[in-house]
Amino acid sequence: MVSLAEIQAARSLLERKVIRTPLVYSPTFSDMTGAEVYLKLETMQKAGSFKVRGAANRIFGRRSEIGRGGVIAASAGNHAQGVAVAAAMAGVAATIVMPEWVSLSKQEATVGYGARVILRGSSLEESIAYAKKAALDEDMTFIHPYDDPLVIAGQGTIGLEVLEDLPDVDIVVVPVGGGGLIAGIATAVKSSRPGARVVGVQAAACPSAAEAFRGGGPVTVEALPTIADGIRVKRTGDLTYPVVRDLVDGVVLVGEQAIMEAMLQLLERKKVLSEGAGAAPLAALLSRGVAVAKREKVVLVISGGNVDTFLLERILKKGLYASGRMLQLAVTVEEGTHSLPALLQALAHAGGVVNRIDQERSAPDLPVHQMRVILELEARGRHHREALIAALHEAGFAARPFPAD
Amino acid sequence: MVSLAEIQAARSLLERKVIRTPLVYSPTFSDMTGAEVYLKLETMQKAGSFKVRGAANRIFGRRSEIGRGGVIAASAGNHAQGVAVAAAMAGVAATIVMPEWVSLSKQEATVGYGARVILRGSSLEESIAYAKKAALDEDMTFIHPYDDPLVIAGQGTIGLEVLEDLPDVDIVVVPVGGGGLIAGIATAVKSSRPGARVVGVQAAACPSAAEAFRGGGPVTVEALPTIADGIRVKRTGDLTYPVVRDLVDGVVLVGEQAIMEAMLQLLERKKVLSEGAGAAPLAALLSRGVAVAKREKVVLVISGGNVDTFLLERILKKGLYASGRMLQLAVTVEEGTHSLPALLQALAHAGGVVNRIDQERSAPDLPVHQMRVILELEARGRHHREALIAALHEAGFAARPFPAD
Repeated sequence: MVSLAEIQAARSLLERKVIRTPLVYSPTFSDMTGAEVYLKLETMQKAGSFKVRGAANRIFGRRSEIGRGGVIAASAGNHAQGVAVAAAMAGVAATIVMPEWVSLSKQEATVGYGARVILRGSSLEESIAYAKKAALDEDMTFIHPYDDPLVIAGQGTIGLEVLEDLPDVDIVVVPVGGGGLIAGIATAVKSSRPGARVVGVQAAACPSAAEAFRGGGPVTVEALPTIADGIRVKRTGDLTYPVVRDLVDGVVLVGEQAIMEAMLQLLERKKVLSEGAGAAPLAALLSRGVAVAKREKVVLVISGGNVDTFLLERILKKGLYASGRMLQLAVTVEEGTHSLPALLQALAHAGGVVNRIDQERSAPDLPVHQMRVILELEARGRHHREALIAALHEAGFAARPFPAD
Repeated sequence: MVSLAEIQAARSLLERKVIRTPLVYSPTFSDMTGAEVYLKLETMQKAGSFKVRGAANRIFGRRSEIGRGGVIAASAGNHAQGVAVAAAMAGVAATIVMPEWVSLSKQEATVGYGARVILRGSSLEESIAYAKKAALDEDMTFIHPYDDPLVIAGQGTIGLEVLEDLPDVDIVVVPVGGGGLIAGIATAVKSSRPGARVVGVQAAACPSAAEAFRGGGPVTVEALPTIADGIRVKRTGDLTYPVVRDLVDGVVLVGEQAIMEAMLQLLERKKVLSEGAGAAPLAALLSRGVAVAKREKVVLVISGGNVDTFLLERILKKGLYASGRMLQLAVTVEEGTHSLPALLQALAHAGGVVNRIDQERSAPDLPVHQMRVILELEARGRHHREALIAALHEAGFAARPFPAD
């Protein structure tokens, strides 16, 4: 078990090494829930997530014991970058083993922080096994992502900062992967303010801590793909589990759609780029997975912001479609020079903005002398979307959503 | 002229009405420039920009004089939302006149904050004229976006917060439209710390303050379209100009490409969504428009984050292309069942991820029995992009960038 004193020691050690991230009030999310909602923005931490806290506390905290080959870690994401940055600060070499399927951008980011990257293993478990073996072979010190008291204490410094900024906090909502982040935060918060609740959030696709919580011990669960890949850990840690069991008030699950919507809300309403795991606490709050009373002070730990730009771009598009601001229509019109201008005129009149036009003249289901026009349009929202379709019908064009709703 | 005392009064009045936004250190931008770079994040302000400060100070500061019809403003952007939110807090009705071409999302956002929106005028100037007339006709109080002492004092509270958080600041870099923001900030900063520099930034597309600064008085400039539409103001204010002249150390200009790149950097490196105007100070810093000495403490005022999602999506795509992470290739291959799998095999071997495949079989420039394949690909970066093209050439495919470089 990690003590409050160990977290306070981490706080001193990390001073001016990591960023003291802001706690920012959100009027929008407060209005939506009736609570007083604050965001703890670890998205702005060095390397884009909380991970550097634990890694730096581990490396600086036992610096004299670091192997001659430096440190080694296995990770498909934020732990890689956290260790790379922490090692660079300490002036020790860092080797990161990543599964072979890891995205190009994550490899580049890790290399960019000065680490050596080795691609090995078809699963994270295989990468970890390789890293542990390499640590022995090359006298490197293995840095565990969560099952290490110094790592847990480092993440716990977030709890101390929250208490400083908001001493009368009622609930802290924390994403849970292996459990290091929530174990540290729960220790810090419950030591100083036993009445406060600490609630964990996981993706329903990988409910390892929820199952451990229910079943009385760590279990290995099946993990489906999830947008919250940062908390896709199949088994809660052996060190973190007892802390979660004793101090955490519950672990709730959120679905993929809720996570994606929370990411969009954070970006559009608070201008904060969060990764899936980071948005999970907001997803839990907005889907009423976390019960809050009126005016209770809620802190959502937005744990990181490392989203691949390709994924972000896809999420923005999906959000635009889901909110009715983007739509595709298929319209079958008579061939001839007048059909297309008339169609576009009707759209312009109704205020629709055309992004893209595709014409099909010889699809197997089309009568001769008719063609199909596929339109990608911008609209004001769901209401305007329906108005656009209605306006086309009124002008004699049988427009229907494409692909069919 | 606005005094420090007036800004301090605004600070008291605005307490708990607006968000005290965070000042966050950026290791990345510090490393890139050698300075100590901090971001003042008005992106997280109510309604997504600093504008609510001035509007709320104006409305609450002379609440008894507000017309029976409430307040009215003309704006194509953030001032609209700032006034709407400030009026809602004060419990007075708000009417916002917007030019007819304003984006759908800005109209919706303003309505969402409880204001009545009127679309009138083909330019902002026409909207302003209409709003001033309507103010008289319907007993509404016109809220000017910058040429009002209470508005300037409200924006100046940003300067006080910066000084509190970073008392030894050396340079504050501020976007300039009409000049209200920089006039307030310069007054606050120079009163307490005369040695600090305050530098303004404008888009080269609309250099009104730069011209005023050079020419000795406000002039009306031509304005080209710019991604920094929030600071596209053709003439510096009559009240703000003397403050800029007396207190501001210079106004620098930045180009569209630099602004776009700064937006991408803020998003990718700091996970902050900034609008074009908000990113202009970073653009000025990174393009060496603002000269900084080693270890000088620089504050960039990131003035707002209201970017239309459609624009953001386009910027992300442009960024991916510019950095070599996304590319399109045209490859002419022999017809036949084996060409396409061989092409894709060669790509897969080189680590290219295929997003989209288009085939053209009958373009006028193609020999019979050949077809053109257009590929949209994901790559690791510029280096990997060249490696992909080289790998295809080695496999016998004459791939070339599409459209041609």
